[in-house]
Amino acid sequence: MKIDIALLPQETKGMDLSDTVCIVLDIFRATTSIVTSMSNGCNMMVPVLSFEDAQKIGAKMESVLFAGERKSVRIEGCNLGNSPFEFCQETVQGKNIIMTTTNGTVAIKSTDGAYLTLIGSFLNAKAVCQQATTYGKDILIVCAGTDGLFSLEDALCAGLLVQILSEGCGMVLSDSAYAAMLMYAAGQGALVETGIVSRNGQRLRELNRIDDVEYCMQINTLTVVPQYVSGKIIIDN
Amino acid sequence: MKIDIALLPQETKGMDLSDTVCIVLDIFRATTSIVTSMSNGCNMMVPVLSFEDAQKIGAKMESVLFAGERKSVRIEGCNLGNSPFEFCQETVQGKNIIMTTTNGTVAIKSTDGAYLTLIGSFLNAKAVCQQATTYGKDILIVCAGTDGLFSLEDALCAGLLVQILSEGCGMVLSDSAYAAMLMYAAGQGALVETGIVSRNGQRLRELNRIDDVEYCMQINTLTVVPQYVSGKIIIDN
Repeated sequence: MKIDIALLPQETKGMDLSDTVCIVLDIFRATTSIVTSMSNGCNMMVPVLSFEDAQKIGAKMESVLFAGERKSVRIEGCNLGNSPFEFCQETVQGKNIIMTTTNGTVAIKSTDGAYLTLIGSFLNAKAVCQQATTYGKDILIVCAGTDGLFSLEDALCAGLLVQILSEGCGMVLSDSAYAAMLMYAAGQGALVETGIVSRNGQRLRELNRIDDVEYCMQINTLTVVPQYVSGKIIIDN
Repeated sequence: MKIDIALLPQETKGMDLSDTVCIVLDIFRATTSIVTSMSNGCNMMVPVLSFEDAQKIGAKMESVLFAGERKSVRIEGCNLGNSPFEFCQETVQGKNIIMTTTNGTVAIKSTDGAYLTLIGSFLNAKAVCQQATTYGKDILIVCAGTDGLFSLEDALCAGLLVQILSEGCGMVLSDSAYAAMLMYAAGQGALVETGIVSRNGQRLRELNRIDDVEYCMQINTLTVVPQYVSGKIIIDN
């Protein structure tokens, strides 16, 4: 079983993913918020590329909330932004959430055509790895990055996933998988501090959202594994 | 002064590098062989994209040797391949070498338009960093990668360069620079072993060239800093 990492979603262009399980990571903050939301009883989430698309799709649905963010700030007219603290049980339970974020949505959609796409984060690291290995397929971890550039926090989480996945037998690591594992080995002792020096971490600090950084870098606090199936994020029970 | 890493040469597309010093790395083996060759008294090296281009340019020059490699093997008709051991003093002293390699040449040419391009490797790590900082410009380390994919050994060397460069004052690291530094911190204790598990390292092992891997991962054994100026690689005395 091969483990590979796309350090940026544009690397998936032209890849045949039909026999590959993808795990998408956008640590600050889209996939962390999705995992939190689905763990708090959200019924379904629909990732879309624009707020206009969100409004069109939402108009046909019941119990709808809109979540949208651009440059780390909530889009005007949305019920929710992109902070995981907004996706609490009282707000999201039983709801359908249409979501558009700067990088996370693009990364999730870059895996269209994959055998299966799972939503990962530090919070559900162990659970998403266990789920990913049950299919006997190659695994591609897709890092969202930021505006087409490499993001440290996504690669660090990818390194943790590789570390967990490579505890299994017969795993073959690509160069990027090996590199991320080394990176995580060196960074794990000061994970939040490393998160804060990243470009997105600095942006969140400027917005007084250090609490988001700390929340997003908790390991194995949740066990849900959201799946992206036919354009929708659900929990497969 | 900002330090950034292009983990693949295609990341430089669209970048304005006119105020940036670039350091190009293709550890296995193009830039290591260039540094070796220039240290051994080679007069000039000309990186070109094809053997046909090499022959056209070489026809107008004296004391010419052709160096060419595809998939780690010497191109038929070339005097030299891509192993640093071929670029010994007896062979290269006073010679002009026209060179075409799978990834290194492309990476060097991807920096066309930069304020200055320097050729780096583990061998001249300290020297190339000292040279790069003398201009007061931002620094971009360009990793050659392999066939458009991330290469572990290039990123490891980039991490060493970031470690050396960040000993200076007021250096601002990009996410990729920080990531490579973490990677190197975790990998430096077993550098050759890590080089061998990389995709290119495995390829060299298959070709019985472990000696190349070992040679290419020696740190600070040479002090030359080749520059790529107007399409030619020279030593600026």
